[in-house]
Amino acid sequence: MKKLFPLVTADVALFTIEDHSLRVLLVKRANEPEQGTWALPGGVLDPGKDCSLDDTARRVLSGKTHVDVPFLEQVATFSGAKRDPRGWSLSVLYYALLPRDQVPAVAGEKTEEIKWVEAFTPAVPLGFDHANLLATAHARLRDKVQRAALPLHLLPARFTLTDLQRTCEVILGRPLDKSAFRRRLKDEPGLIELEGEFLRGAQRPAQLYRADDGFRF
Amino acid sequence: MKKLFPLVTADVALFTIEDHSLRVLLVKRANEPEQGTWALPGGVLDPGKDCSLDDTARRVLSGKTHVDVPFLEQVATFSGAKRDPRGWSLSVLYYALLPRDQVPAVAGEKTEEIKWVEAFTPAVPLGFDHANLLATAHARLRDKVQRAALPLHLLPARFTLTDLQRTCEVILGRPLDKSAFRRRLKDEPGLIELEGEFLRGAQRPAQLYRADDGFRF
Repeated sequence: MKKLFPLVTADVALFTIEDHSLRVLLVKRANEPEQGTWALPGGVLDPGKDCSLDDTARRVLSGKTHVDVPFLEQVATFSGAKRDPRGWSLSVLYYALLPRDQVPAVAGEKTEEIKWVEAFTPAVPLGFDHANLLATAHARLRDKVQRAALPLHLLPARFTLTDLQRTCEVILGRPLDKSAFRRRLKDEPGLIELEGEFLRGAQRPAQLYRADDGFRF
Repeated sequence: MKKLFPLVTADVALFTIEDHSLRVLLVKRANEPEQGTWALPGGVLDPGKDCSLDDTARRVLSGKTHVDVPFLEQVATFSGAKRDPRGWSLSVLYYALLPRDQVPAVAGEKTEEIKWVEAFTPAVPLGFDHANLLATAHARLRDKVQRAALPLHLLPARFTLTDLQRTCEVILGRPLDKSAFRRRLKDEPGLIELEGEFLRGAQRPAQLYRADDGFRF
């Protein structure tokens, strides 16, 4: 009997925030299967190159989109005989976060085009079961923020508390109470006040902050 | 160049509660690698038999331990070249819950022996990286209960609210406030009061409950 091996891929939902909306990166597939359709960037595990599936995720993301992400985390594994025309397959889904000032402009290998779409309602149909993967990654991100994790990896290097609150609101899709939000930031070790640095605009100057280097989401 | 394929397994941390302690099922491996060591029950994906990795998990658990679990959920996927002597491998970890009155007594195929050990501190060293897998599954279970999920799948068919509180306490490893616990149960749709059914003992009769059929953890 012929021994069957599953196809193992890592797929990444890469999120950023632009124009007050949560966006996810899609790639237009240059090769079969599903050539020409939009999908989450992903690729096949290479046991000769990758020390772990985290490596696979970083390698394919960097290959297809020229992005090295500071934050990447496993979400879940999807599997089955029907989800990929190449046969029994297994996709380990990751999500990653990128500040909007580091968003890549050009597509990489095996990719015709890249674009950022609304994460809640992508404007295009997604190939494979990637609509399901995206919804799962998005739910995980919301869940983290809901549980009081701060999405610092989505912010630029220096940001105000208003920036931080807006970022949380965009992910959750609902407004947050400002004073409750500020109260919970009081003992947040990941948040470093930049002494004497302020954002000056129409309103009174706003204190600038940065995320601690060791901060993991 | 020879194409390399990873070994894909599903491994299961199966929990129960016995004698007021959280236990996990270990199997003594009858075959190499790691023959004779204790490990979480698990086995290799068979794309010809399994529609998904959930199927793999249920199949290997039922094969090695004769248990069909009502509740099983994916935790995370572990991967790398070093974790299994057979080569690059990928383990999709599940956790499952079983009431103590359904605990199996006999080992199944490829298994010399089974035993239940303390989940916090298993009395024996575990093979492969299974100590890490167990800790991760255990953390997920605690996290669920911490977030007010009720571990109804660990309880017998009929139980009292005291049974339920004790079960949560055993998983969390700390006492819970009785009145706060009862308050949060008030609007719990998964919990069905059994009209006129009471547990009668030394103290005053205690109302019996059952879990709703549709309840998912």
